[in-house]
Formats: sequence, structure tokens, C-alpha cells
Amino acid sequence: MQGLDRIEQTLERAVTRAQGPGAPPLLASALHYAIFPGGHRIRPHLCLAVSGACGEDRPVVAAAAAASIELLHCASLAHDDLPCFDDADTRRGKPSVHARFGTPIALLAGDALIVLAFETLAHEVSADRLAPLVSIISAAVGAPRGIVAGQAWECEAAVPLVDYQRAKTGALFVGSTMAGAAAAGAEPEPWRTLGERLGEAYQVADDLRDVLCDADELGKPVGQDAARRRPNAATQLGIGGAKARLEDLVKAAADSIPACAGRSELCAVIEAQTSRLFPKQLARVAA
Amino acid sequence: MQGLDRIEQTLERAVTRAQGPGAPPLLASALHYAIFPGGHRIRPHLCLAVSGACGEDRPVVAAAAAASIELLHCASLAHDDLPCFDDADTRRGKPSVHARFGTPIALLAGDALIVLAFETLAHEVSADRLAPLVSIISAAVGAPRGIVAGQAWECEAAVPLVDYQRAKTGALFVGSTMAGAAAAGAEPEPWRTLGERLGEAYQVADDLRDVLCDADELGKPVGQDAARRRPNAATQLGIGGAKARLEDLVKAAADSIPACAGRSELCAVIEAQTSRLFPKQLARVAA
Repeated sequence: MQGLDRIEQTLERAVTRAQGPGAPPLLASALHYAIFPGGHRIRPHLCLAVSGACGEDRPVVAAAAAASIELLHCASLAHDDLPCFDDADTRRGKPSVHARFGTPIALLAGDALIVLAFETLAHEVSADRLAPLVSIISAAVGAPRGIVAGQAWECEAAVPLVDYQRAKTGALFVGSTMAGAAAAGAEPEPWRTLGERLGEAYQVADDLRDVLCDADELGKPVGQDAARRRPNAATQLGIGGAKARLEDLVKAAADSIPACAGRSELCAVIEAQTSRLFPKQLARVAA
Repeated sequence: MQGLDRIEQTLERAVTRAQGPGAPPLLASALHYAIFPGGHRIRPHLCLAVSGACGEDRPVVAAAAAASIELLHCASLAHDDLPCFDDADTRRGKPSVHARFGTPIALLAGDALIVLAFETLAHEVSADRLAPLVSIISAAVGAPRGIVAGQAWECEAAVPLVDYQRAKTGALFVGSTMAGAAAAGAEPEPWRTLGERLGEAYQVADDLRDVLCDADELGKPVGQDAARRRPNAATQLGIGGAKARLEDLVKAAADSIPACAGRSELCAVIEAQTSRLFPKQLARVAA
């Protein structure tokens, strides 16, 4: 089964459990709405690709790790879009969770998705690989340096840019590569650098899209960094400078892939994935 | 070491990890503020008491389960008190998390506490007991029937009272008794009824306090059920009727304790704990 099917099926199984008998109907609907239809599922794809490169021996474990990461990503989108943060009315080309279901249900859907991520691991991961996966994934999400901490930096008067971006964007990419390795029984730590570099590349690409794209194309509001005075690589380095930085990061990411059985296949997957990061408007920009 | 010390020390160790290098300062402060000083720590005490009755053989595992449950309880308080739900300015006799730190940080602190609960299990629980504990505790918290689902019932036009109270209050008591058993390597299912009855008793006692006590005594706003049109046992059954119901539930809880090595000690602990549930104003009410 292809990666995308495995991810979607594992997500479907998880949300079906959460929507089981006794579930309040609005919450049950909001959980499905927050997950489907997905975006590019970049993080769970990365997790599966690394697991494959490490000689994936237990497909169910890798799929559970990938789905857990995507559930946490969906939770963070539901919470980040709330009026007290980005107050974004659209996401993935449709009303955001709170725009559709109201703030209370959006907040609770995010909470339930966080819980569901760990419940999914407990249900599907064999005992000898569960603790490393819960540790890696919780570190990528919580305090002190996960995506929740990244969002919390936006509440501080002074924000160290590197800490902010590493936590807000990079942490879940690091979680994806390390969890992919751990799901295959490989040592996770050598996979940290790949996650860091891909996370930074994704951040630069996101900054470029925020400046270059329109809202229809992006499926969410644009110009948000300027509106919220958040740092933006395209503003700081110029469009050409940011494009060059993105190219450097993609190359550095590929170079950082540890020696493993499926190294060349993984390089190809990462090249295909990262080529999608470049907004098509960049074709008109000189390198 | 006494139960309270074990719980507090495990909570301290967990929050110290979450406040580690790189943590955003406001979030780090809010995490500690949401946990300390605690209330009666009823749920983690119950978890440890059941673990002890089942012949607790790994004290670290039992303490981690108890701390995880308390972290999730603290997360639910931080979120339930937010303006979009109860809009409560006080909790445990001091400003609520959002009253002290603002809504964004209170929301993120709740998220980080949920993650920390599972991270604590992964760090401290041996591999053979981790999956059952994560499963039991996530079922007590998430959808379809955990405390998050309980809160979500408040967003529905029609609320089935039993589903609402079982999820909102009962689920984490069930999680506490079943996790206590699982932490000791015992079969958790026989401990479900004790949790359900204690959860219901706690709900009736909470309803009585909401009607009988003043805010200083309670450390949080009173009269909330009437103000929010939530069902309240003292209103539905009268004070005397609710008191009789509470007494029946406490007795039924004690009767439901499964056969185990430490049954008589557990009965004594539960009697001592539940005697605290009766608001002192009830002494003036005829049974």
C-alpha cells in the first residue's frame, strides 16, 4: 500500500475510535473536519520515508507514528487559528475549525486530537518501541522546545528568532524524522539534523508563500507575518535571497541523510517533496 | 514516602523537565502555576491507593500514573476556566491561569500539560506497563467519553445527563482506579465500578458545594450551575435528597472494591477521602 493510503487509513481508524458510542455530536464532527481532507501530509510522509529508508520492519508501527504526528499537526492548526492567536477564518481552503464549529468546540477538538495522537500510539505500537516514540513525539510538541512552546514565544515581548522558529516549525519535522527511525527500530538521534534542515526549509518556503501567493492559492490568509510583525525570511533576505537560502537548505538536508539501506530512495522522495516547497511564482525570480 | 510526597515530587520532576533550556518564560511560569499549589489531589491519591491495594510492586510506575492523571486534571482546569467556557477568574483560591497569564498562555499551558502527562508516562513507566496505562488514561481524557468529551457536551443543545456527568467528572475517576490497578500489574477492568461510583459521589458533592458554600471557602466562583443552566443534583433532589444520594454512593463505592490484598486499608482511605466530600454545612441538614 502506498504511503498516502496508509496514512489516511490509520487516521480514519483513529478518528473512528474517537467518534465512538457516547461521543458528543459536534465534537465528533469537528474531529473529522480537522483531519480531512488533509493538506500535503508532509510530516507523516517524511516519517514513513525515513522509516522505509531504515528498513521498516513493522509497517503498522510506522503508520501509527506518522498518523500520530499528523494528528498533533492538525491539533496545532485548530488551536493556532483560534481568535486569541491568528484569528484565521480559513485553512486548507475551507473555514477553519473555529469558523465552522465555534471557539469552544475548536479548542476541545484540538485537545482531543492531542490525546488521540498518544492513544493511537498505545493501540498500534508494539511494547518495545512505544516509549521511544512517545518520548520523541511529545518532545516535538510540548514544552520546553516543541510546537506548543513555539506558539508561546509569540506571547513574549522579546523573541529569540532561532528558538522561535526551531520550536514553532522545526520541532515537528525533527519529530517526524526521528520517529520514522525509531519506528523501524533504528537509532533516532542521527536523524535529527535532517529534520532540522527540512523544518528550516519549510519555514523559508512558508515565508515566501506568505509574501508571494494569494489566499485562494494558499487556502489560508496571506500577509500574516507582516500583519502580526512576525519575522519573515523573504522580508529579511529579499525574495532572491530567501530563494537561495531555500535551495541551500534543501541541499544541506539531502547531504545530512545518515548512511542507511534506502538512502538513495529517500533522497529521491525528499527531492520530490521539497520541489513542491518552491512557490511557482519563484520561476520569475532570478536566483 | 507518603502518597502526597510521592505525587508532589513526581509532578515537580515533570514540570522541571517542561521548563528546561529553551522554554519560553511565560509558558514555563504558567505550567508551574497551573500545578502548584494543588488542591486535594483526590484523583492521584485514589490511583496510588488502588495501586497499593493491588500490591504495588513498582512505586515509580504508580507515581507516574498518578502524576499523569493530575497533570491532565490541571490541564482541564486551565481550559475549562477560559472565557469561552466558565470564564472563571479564580481557582484554588488564586487567580485562574488565564486571569494571571492571559488566554493565549493559559490555552498553551493546557496543551503542554496534556503532552507532559504522556511524556511523564513514557519516561517513568516500564515497557510492559506503558501501553495499558496510556490507553486507560487517554480514554479517560479524550473522545468519545473522556473529560474533553464531557466539556464538549456543554456545547450541545440537548445534553443526556448521564453521558455528560460520566464523561465530565466520572471518566477521570475511572481512569484513576483503573490506572492504579494497571500500574501494579493487576487487571484494570474490575476497578471500573469503584471509579464510576466515586466520580458520581464527587459530582453530587460538587453540586452541593456549588449551592451551599461561599466563594472564599471554595476557592472558585459558586452558583455556577444555576448561572450556566447546568444540571445540579442539589437543585433536582433538594439538599436532603442530594445528601442521602451522596451517602448511598459512598457506601456503594466501598462495596464495589474488588477482592485484593489491601482491601481493608483501601476502604479506610476511601472513607477518609469521601468524608471530606461532605460540605460542613450539611451537618445542619437532616438526613
